[in-house]
Amino acid sequence: MADGLNMSRRIRRTPYTDRVEAAGVRGFSVVNHMLLPKAFQPSVEDDYWHLCDHVQMWDVSCQRQVEIEGPDAEQLVQWMTPRAIAKAKPGDCLYVPITDTNGGIINDPVLLKLTDDKFWLSIADSDVLLYAKGLAIGAGLDVAICEPDVSPLAVQGPKAEDLLAELFGDGIRDVGFFKYGWFDFQGTPQLVARSGYSRQGGFEIYLNGARFGPALWDAVWQAGERHNITPGCPNLIERIEGGLFSYGNEMTRETNPLEFGLGKFCTLDGSIDFIGREALQKVARDGVAREIRGVMFDGPACPTCAIPWPVMVGAYQVGQITSGIWSPRLQRNIGLSLIDRAHWDIGTPVEVQYHDGSRRAGALSALPFA
Amino acid sequence: MADGLNMSRRIRRTPYTDRVEAAGVRGFSVVNHMLLPKAFQPSVEDDYWHLCDHVQMWDVSCQRQVEIEGPDAEQLVQWMTPRAIAKAKPGDCLYVPITDTNGGIINDPVLLKLTDDKFWLSIADSDVLLYAKGLAIGAGLDVAICEPDVSPLAVQGPKAEDLLAELFGDGIRDVGFFKYGWFDFQGTPQLVARSGYSRQGGFEIYLNGARFGPALWDAVWQAGERHNITPGCPNLIERIEGGLFSYGNEMTRETNPLEFGLGKFCTLDGSIDFIGREALQKVARDGVAREIRGVMFDGPACPTCAIPWPVMVGAYQVGQITSGIWSPRLQRNIGLSLIDRAHWDIGTPVEVQYHDGSRRAGALSALPFA
Repeated sequence: MADGLNMSRRIRRTPYTDRVEAAGVRGFSVVNHMLLPKAFQPSVEDDYWHLCDHVQMWDVSCQRQVEIEGPDAEQLVQWMTPRAIAKAKPGDCLYVPITDTNGGIINDPVLLKLTDDKFWLSIADSDVLLYAKGLAIGAGLDVAICEPDVSPLAVQGPKAEDLLAELFGDGIRDVGFFKYGWFDFQGTPQLVARSGYSRQGGFEIYLNGARFGPALWDAVWQAGERHNITPGCPNLIERIEGGLFSYGNEMTRETNPLEFGLGKFCTLDGSIDFIGREALQKVARDGVAREIRGVMFDGPACPTCAIPWPVMVGAYQVGQITSGIWSPRLQRNIGLSLIDRAHWDIGTPVEVQYHDGSRRAGALSALPFA
Repeated sequence: MADGLNMSRRIRRTPYTDRVEAAGVRGFSVVNHMLLPKAFQPSVEDDYWHLCDHVQMWDVSCQRQVEIEGPDAEQLVQWMTPRAIAKAKPGDCLYVPITDTNGGIINDPVLLKLTDDKFWLSIADSDVLLYAKGLAIGAGLDVAICEPDVSPLAVQGPKAEDLLAELFGDGIRDVGFFKYGWFDFQGTPQLVARSGYSRQGGFEIYLNGARFGPALWDAVWQAGERHNITPGCPNLIERIEGGLFSYGNEMTRETNPLEFGLGKFCTLDGSIDFIGREALQKVARDGVAREIRGVMFDGPACPTCAIPWPVMVGAYQVGQITSGIWSPRLQRNIGLSLIDRAHWDIGTPVEVQYHDGSRRAGALSALPFA
């Protein structure tokens, strides 16, 4: 198992890893110094169809929480993101890009407001905890910052609500999109949000207490059996089709939120102060130089995109595909690329250039892919 | 190849990865969001003997550089570490633990002083760049912080000096331990330090310019052929025998430098100010509650230590082994553990408890292992 990835304590196991291995995981990635399962079914394609039709449970413990608590907690969180958070209430989840002084993206977590002075940032793959600590120490803010013992388990797919209603009661049906509620598991209150890294609907259980991991896994499994549950993981086909971006793939410090169409999450009118405001205001004034697009391109099925593939218009590189895969539904290859302004119209013919120099004909697509 | 690790752009390849794959790498780890080769020879044991007898080249690009430059650069670096850096000169490498307000270790990089206002921190596995950025933004320091295009290639083993003398000239012999010099490679000045993550001697070439990666790999390979060079990587047997610690394995934010015998790198007399000073001063006053030790324990060869193994004295847990492996030289298993003060005397009989509850008899050892 996992011949190619050398294990050590530094690559942290999760409360579910024993179960994930018993369920026949076929590979891992590493996110936030922690294992993320990457394949179970014979192929990512099988995983994809199952996710679209049924329900899956995903070990997404690597979505670590950065807990920020104290009198200055809201001030610090607001300082970190272009998104105005003052109106958020306990029970709200907010997608909050975090930007540096250049407007570059440091992470794109989901913010959970727990109380007026306590927040979790549910992070993608960069050490936001260290960044937040640095800001707090540097500015002398009165906050405590830690990584709590919280390990999200996602339940994703069209049957997720029915499954969780059996486990937690019908109250789960009243949880709105990007809202959370508290539900009992074995006598402990657990945070359950209607959210997740797919477009198929579902929930994330922010399990507080690693010792409950195996029991939660087993309980979800048991309740899911009659819904045809399988273990799963964020699915590359579904994610790209759905236009969901990945930090470290599409988003890096060299990109900014406006390039990803996230202007609606950026308050640039001066009513809030945050790191990177001047930089983003300038980008907004000038207009972005590039913007995210889908690219559909000819088969056969593309290889793994571990190094970006140039997107060409004739002799000019107008972008680069940072995630790409064969879509069995669309029967084309699909990918994500920032595309230069002069060429970004939907439908623009482009070519995708593989490392061997060969090219595949394609065209720009809106996101999500239709 | 690497079945178990799912590849994506987020898990960054290095300037040498093509060569590493061509050389038959058998597994990777992920450090700083980048591939680190983990095995080449049929076994880690073969790698070990070769490293001790000959010379190896290691792709340690994952030792990313955090470049801090500007009028406040020295002030920021000093603030980050308990080690006094004022007397460092260009040409010096310093091992500098980085501590948080609790004295907990955030990273344990090597500091390279380039000029009076420009430093590199050559980091272990945590995003020091984000921490440094946070501190600088929070405190309003006048510095520029970036990750330059620098990818270290280590040349380790007793024949490393002879090899590099052929490549860079005899001037390489004058570079002292933990010093660096500038040497020409294909018309470019490259920083070469006498350092590396082994006790077998050697150098690290801080290659500036990813485009030179394959050429440097090939040049070292060619010069090394008559020295019986092989590709290699940090060797777990040699590292543990040598008492070299690993961030994320032995060292975490829950440990402090004094527990690792690093008091000599901590200036606690008040003459310098740094983050965590008060906490470390208190630890120094009270004495550390635990300290790093070697543990030798009975065979057969232990499994991979992915979850720490409790170190027991009777019914009491007195520590946990965070890295462990079979030593073919000592013909015993060896491991590293912080051990509670009441039990830390060298020679103390202990038992190592595996996950199945079984125990192996052992005893505490000084470091490095004799």
